Amino acid sequence: MTSVTNDAYLAAGAEVELFEWAYAQRMPIILTGPTGCGKTRFVEHMGRRLGRDVVTISCHDDLTSADLVGRFMVTGGDVVWTDGPLTSAVKSGAICYLDEVVEARHDSLAVLHSLTDHRRTLFLDRAGETVHAPTTFMLACSYNPAYRSSLKELKPSFRQRFVTVPMDYLPADREAAVVVAESGVDIAVAQRLVACARTIRDADDVFHFEPPSTRVLVAAARLIAAGATELVAVHACVLAPLSGDGAIHDGLREIAAAHFEPTSDSPSPRSKAVRP
Amino acid sequence: MTSVTNDAYLAAGAEVELFEWAYAQRMPIILTGPTGCGKTRFVEHMGRRLGRDVVTISCHDDLTSADLVGRFMVTGGDVVWTDGPLTSAVKSGAICYLDEVVEARHDSLAVLHSLTDHRRTLFLDRAGETVHAPTTFMLACSYNPAYRSSLKELKPSFRQRFVTVPMDYLPADREAAVVVAESGVDIAVAQRLVACARTIRDADDVFHFEPPSTRVLVAAARLIAAGATELVAVHACVLAPLSGDGAIHDGLREIAAAHFEPTSDSPSPRSKAVRP
Amino acid sequence: MTSVTNDAYLAAGAEVELFEWAYAQRMPIILTGPTGCGKTRFVEHMGRRLGRDVVTISCHDDLTSADLVGRFMVTGGDVVWTDGPLTSAVKSGAICYLDEVVEARHDSLAVLHSLTDHRRTLFLDRAGETVHAPTTFMLACSYNPAYRSSLKELKPSFRQRFVTVPMDYLPADREAAVVVAESGVDIAVAQRLVACARTIRDADDVFHFEPPSTRVLVAAARLIAAGATELVAVHACVLAPLSGDGAIHDGLREIAAAHFEPTSDSPSPRSKAVRP
Amino acid sequence: MTSVTNDAYLAAGAEVELFEWAYAQRMPIILTGPTGCGKTRFVEHMGRRLGRDVVTISCHDDLTSADLVGRFMVTGGDVVWTDGPLTSAVKSGAICYLDEVVEARHDSLAVLHSLTDHRRTLFLDRAGETVHAPTTFMLACSYNPAYRSSLKELKPSFRQRFVTVPMDYLPADREAAVVVAESGVDIAVAQRLVACARTIRDADDVFHFEPPSTRVLVAAARLIAAGATELVAVHACVLAPLSGDGAIHDGLREIAAAHFEPTSDSPSPRSKAVRP
Amino acid sequence: MTSVTNDAYLAAGAEVELFEWAYAQRMPIILTGPTGCGKTRFVEHMGRRLGRDVVTISCHDDLTSADLVGRFMVTGGDVVWTDGPLTSAVKSGAICYLDEVVEARHDSLAVLHSLTDHRRTLFLDRAGETVHAPTTFMLACSYNPAYRSSLKELKPSFRQRFVTVPMDYLPADREAAVVVAESGVDIAVAQRLVACARTIRDADDVFHFEPPSTRVLVAAARLIAAGATELVAVHACVLAPLSGDGAIHDGLREIAAAHFEPTSDSPSPRSKAVRP
Amino acid sequence: MTSVTNDAYLAAGAEVELFEWAYAQRMPIILTGPTGCGKTRFVEHMGRRLGRDVVTISCHDDLTSADLVGRFMVTGGDVVWTDGPLTSAVKSGAICYLDEVVEARHDSLAVLHSLTDHRRTLFLDRAGETVHAPTTFMLACSYNPAYRSSLKELKPSFRQRFVTVPMDYLPADREAAVVVAESGVDIAVAQRLVACARTIRDADDVFHFEPPSTRVLVAAARLIAAGATELVAVHACVLAPLSGDGAIHDGLREIAAAHFEPTSDSPSPRSKAVRP
Repeated sequence: MTSVTNDAYLAAGAEVELFEWAYAQRMPIILTGPTGCGKTRFVEHMGRRLGRDVVTISCHDDLTSADLVGRFMVTGGDVVWTDGPLTSAVKSGAICYLDEVVEARHDSLAVLHSLTDHRRTLFLDRAGETVHAPTTFMLACSYNPAYRSSLKELKPSFRQRFVTVPMDYLPADREAAVVVAESGVDIAVAQRLVACARTIRDADDVFHFEPPSTRVLVAAARLIAAGATELVAVHACVLAPLSGDGAIHDGLREIAAAHFEPTSDSPSPRSKAVRP
Repeated sequence: MTSVTNDAYLAAGAEVELFEWAYAQRMPIILTGPTGCGKTRFVEHMGRRLGRDVVTISCHDDLTSADLVGRFMVTGGDVVWTDGPLTSAVKSGAICYLDEVVEARHDSLAVLHSLTDHRRTLFLDRAGETVHAPTTFMLACSYNPAYRSSLKELKPSFRQRFVTVPMDYLPADREAAVVVAESGVDIAVAQRLVACARTIRDADDVFHFEPPSTRVLVAAARLIAAGATELVAVHACVLAPLSGDGAIHDGLREIAAAHFEPTSDSPSPRSKAVRP
Repeated sequence: MTSVTNDAYLAAGAEVELFEWAYAQRMPIILTGPTGCGKTRFVEHMGRRLGRDVVTISCHDDLTSADLVGRFMVTGGDVVWTDGPLTSAVKSGAICYLDEVVEARHDSLAVLHSLTDHRRTLFLDRAGETVHAPTTFMLACSYNPAYRSSLKELKPSFRQRFVTVPMDYLPADREAAVVVAESGVDIAVAQRLVACARTIRDADDVFHFEPPSTRVLVAAARLIAAGATELVAVHACVLAPLSGDGAIHDGLREIAAAHFEPTSDSPSPRSKAVRP
Repeated sequence: MTSVTNDAYLAAGAEVELFEWAYAQRMPIILTGPTGCGKTRFVEHMGRRLGRDVVTISCHDDLTSADLVGRFMVTGGDVVWTDGPLTSAVKSGAICYLDEVVEARHDSLAVLHSLTDHRRTLFLDRAGETVHAPTTFMLACSYNPAYRSSLKELKPSFRQRFVTVPMDYLPADREAAVVVAESGVDIAVAQRLVACARTIRDADDVFHFEPPSTRVLVAAARLIAAGATELVAVHACVLAPLSGDGAIHDGLREIAAAHFEPTSDSPSPRSKAVRP
Repeated sequence: MTSVTNDAYLAAGAEVELFEWAYAQRMPIILTGPTGCGKTRFVEHMGRRLGRDVVTISCHDDLTSADLVGRFMVTGGDVVWTDGPLTSAVKSGAICYLDEVVEARHDSLAVLHSLTDHRRTLFLDRAGETVHAPTTFMLACSYNPAYRSSLKELKPSFRQRFVTVPMDYLPADREAAVVVAESGVDIAVAQRLVACARTIRDADDVFHFEPPSTRVLVAAARLIAAGATELVAVHACVLAPLSGDGAIHDGLREIAAAHFEPTSDSPSPRSKAVRP
Repeated sequence: MTSVTNDAYLAAGAEVELFEWAYAQRMPIILTGPTGCGKTRFVEHMGRRLGRDVVTISCHDDLTSADLVGRFMVTGGDVVWTDGPLTSAVKSGAICYLDEVVEARHDSLAVLHSLTDHRRTLFLDRAGETVHAPTTFMLACSYNPAYRSSLKELKPSFRQRFVTVPMDYLPADREAAVVVAESGVDIAVAQRLVACARTIRDADDVFHFEPPSTRVLVAAARLIAAGATELVAVHACVLAPLSGDGAIHDGLREIAAAHFEPTSDSPSPRSKAVRP
């Protein structure tokens, strides 16, 4: 599944420089921006660029600090300490990437405090061990500020510990290039998908939902590459996830219809699959 | 209980093509549609069609990520890692079907992230193991958007990871054919059952309940095949589950009465069982 | 305490036929009706009639799926899997009766899904075992729709899996016969108890409580058989449980007074025990 | 601390007969009445009268069913089943008394179901054992209906399983006799204490608190026997517990002042201790 | 840190007599009064006076009954019962003091029931042991009725089990004597501190906070003894804890200013530390 | 990462004297003040000044008392008690610093009671051990009163146990000196950063957020030292954390624009990175 563009990250703004300045100063960063705009791929790209491994941890409600730092485990009758992914990343001087950090329980994040200030140290209280981060270690987090419940907010004192790197969708031409590179569709198809997505993103205030990401455009393009008509693919990958109740809003249909006229598709026995 | 139609799935729309396109592109899918419209049977059908085993996991409030990926268990004095059903499905390249995925706790679903993007990888943090999915592995979820509490919503970022395959009730003639095939009743009986169900489904807005599924029509038909009158069977299998308080609404009785006149049933000593 | 009528179940409606039809078709059933109308005894009766053992499980808030299907237990130094009552019932082809199923946690009920559809299979994920139900296995649940909190509702998709068998109180003459058979009191006493209960049941809308069951009439009759006056017994067994605050409502007293005049009781030194 | 009256229970109503009738019929009972009116002592008295041991279990929010029936415990390297107090009581044919049963979690009470109906059986699911209660076993519960939160109510279906035995404060002369017997004070002192308590109980609707029990009168009398003035003892044992905020209401002071005039006490160096 | 006055408790009211009468009658007591008025020291004083050890247990939200009575613990490969502090206190006939008992979970307090009535017995259900309290054992609790949330109230039935011993701040001269004895400051300083505290206590209704305790006056006096000016010490020890938001209310400043004029302090290089 | 100023703490007020007076009197302290004003560094400074080690514990929602005092752990087959960081600090006579103590669960804080009053003793109930603090032990807590939810308040009785040491941001010249010392930027840059921060702090009432700390000024300065323009650095380190939704408020932009004119920066190919 590794696509050809993985090593050719297309930057949207100053994120590469900000990442490198922070890395040079051993400061942790936090990436902000909408779902699917490329935060995870950006961190993977920077890992390759800086020659560091990336350890990714998807945060969720039930992530405990033991899941991060490690725990004692019974192995072959013995009880031995087993490093968690954060501890492994610190010890090996890797880039540790906490995806959607706002989802984690606040108490789990407390173990990060001593890693994110001048101490750059991880305290493994239960193992009785103190780990000083090597200079190549870097902590990166991501956070989607537009999608958050009122119950889950990063504390200001937590956010102040990080250099904030704002990210956004790619410009249209670069986004179309990514879609082509990831799916193999023609550039004209990719441009139609990107144009449709941008129309929906601009209508965001009307619809009040998470706008379509580059990820869903690539998904639609791959479905088209597999044989689906453009309209079927856009319904299945772009429009359906936007709509909580399965019944796609009329407004969305109209946007899609304007970009992908049914007549522009070659008629097929499957075109009945689209339920207008 | 395996009926003759199990291998002869009757498609309502484009679900077969969408499933196959997604399978060809190694993309995960999510089936949406009302309870009992045939989502589980559809996945089983596709498993046979593609020659892959189907591992089904019924999601619920208390499903932990350990229930999905596995855990350490004590066996014969030793502590050994035991794969969960998701891990088994990934390793064997099967189709893993998460039924009613919206019921699961969000934190349990976090383990799916790396399986549903370009990585197609399952991280078993506690076992210290990384499993790369073979090309035949596919993840399928189901989700009934009409039946959900306000507290339980799939996150948009989760839904964007899947190709959405919308499903709906079968057209009347195909649904009647399924009822005949599954129960052995006459086609006329099946048609009356389907007509009654469709009337109730159309009245959905009035009654505000989960409409009757193909499953309950088959159940009623089987009860008729066992000797019950049509009206008794429809009360026991179709109407009673619709009504929270056991006392079937007058409106429902009238619909049933219009489709199954008591005089059309041969009088039997048991007809007193119907409490009008 | 086994009374002579245990083998002579008196049916109120079509419950016997519905049970047998469902049994013939290997379909699960759900009994609905008020507390104490005889659901448990009906299932025990059908077990004897069909020659199957009945395994009864009282559901409650804290019933886990492990309580149903089994768990690993440490026995004599070894860790061995121990079947729960549901698994035992499936393996032995018994009738498994889940009393007050609405009380159980929804996640515990998820293990029933594969048992209640065409698969008729129990998946013991933790033991790595799959149990196919023999043809004699039947699942029966009970559910009192009139007594439920707003927080506890069976999901429609769950209810649609069952044949609903509605039950109600017995007709007056049959109920009096049961009271006589269970307690040994004269038929006239039993008739007065039944008449009093029916008056209260009819006044249900006024009082808003769970109406008196056949069970409490039998209890009152047994207290009378032990020497209590009718009025004392009715207060202790029928009226007191109806009234949350111990102080029996005036309306209830009047109903009782109308059926059991103090003068109809032989005066006794204990009559002072009744606090008017 | 065993007082001379322990074997000379003074009945307030018909509770002795009701208990004996229920015992003769192997029926469970539930005692209702205000805190401290003598429910626990009554059960102890009936145990002596019937020659049965009494096993008392104080119910609370965190009482699990394992606390009642037993659990596996590690003893000397072996894992052995250990009966809980309920199981012990059933096996030995004792009277098992669940004090303040409404405090227990409902799920813990589910194990009582099969003990309280015609089965009279305790199912130890985890131990795989079934215990049939001998004829001498009796289950008794207590319940104070006036003191209950809206969140904690016994379910009607639970209450219908028991013979209700209503209890209340003793008549004034018997209550004074108990106070004398338990504390050794003069009958005149006991009468003053009882008179004061009855005045407060009658004013219950005004004050909205749990009225003073016989227990607190005995406590006050014992403090008097130790040297306290009547007014000091009444403040410390009777009035203070009535008042949530420590500052005794003026109304209560007036009632106390009317019964225990300071001038009737012999002046003592400690009288300054009373803060008027 | 043991001060010279520890053995010279200065009683504010009748608490010594009430404690001794309750001790003579083997009755449990509950001390009520504001935070820091000397409840803990009073119990320690009574322990010395009666020649009994005092076992103090600070109650909190998460105190389990096992924390009180004991638990099985693994020691050197064996599983042995280990008494908790309550059990130790009962067995050794000590005074067991439960500080801030209202903070404990109600279920944890249920184990106290049999200790606080005529049984004076502790049931160790899990250890299968019954401990009868020796005559020297006494149970004492404390409770601050002015500081309680609506969710945490001692149940009336619990409070009725205890002799209530109301406590309050000491009279001004005795409180100043305690301050001198504990800190070594001049009597004039102590009198100014006490006067300031009493002014704030009297203004309690205006400020709505927990009034300053004797404890904070001693703390301020010790800071003064270490070199702080009176105004700095009063700000740090008396005023700051009263004010939730760190910014001390103007009203409090005025009260302090009236008692401790800056000009009365010798000017020092540090006086700039006071931020007016 | 240890900077040259670590040993040259610049005091803002009387915090050094208050700390020393409290240390001399063996009294615990609580530091109050805004996030990032230097509380942690102040405690580290005092540790060096007094020649005591500092044990820092970051408090959070899930910190248990076992995390503080220790627990039994299985090591090499044996079960041994392992001191927690609080116990270690007490035994070694160190300064124990509980950072953000208001975040901890109240029950975890109960173990501190006996350490913070005249007893200066830590009770390890589970280990059966009592630890008397040596004279060099000191307990310090921190607490940000401006940032607290309504659910999390330190109890007044807890706060009264501590000497309160109020802290605040440094005066402008000292803060700029810290920024220079920590980052190596020119004093003019540091002064501009401090001036910008002070303008935002003064506008606190308008913006309602946690004001920028000295920590974020140092972070911005270090980013500038790495090559970032002043405006980019201020956006990434100072402004972004203030704004919950990633879109920096216009008001903040204007403040920043007033302090860091784009024209004052040398134009660079990266200047496009700043999204105005």
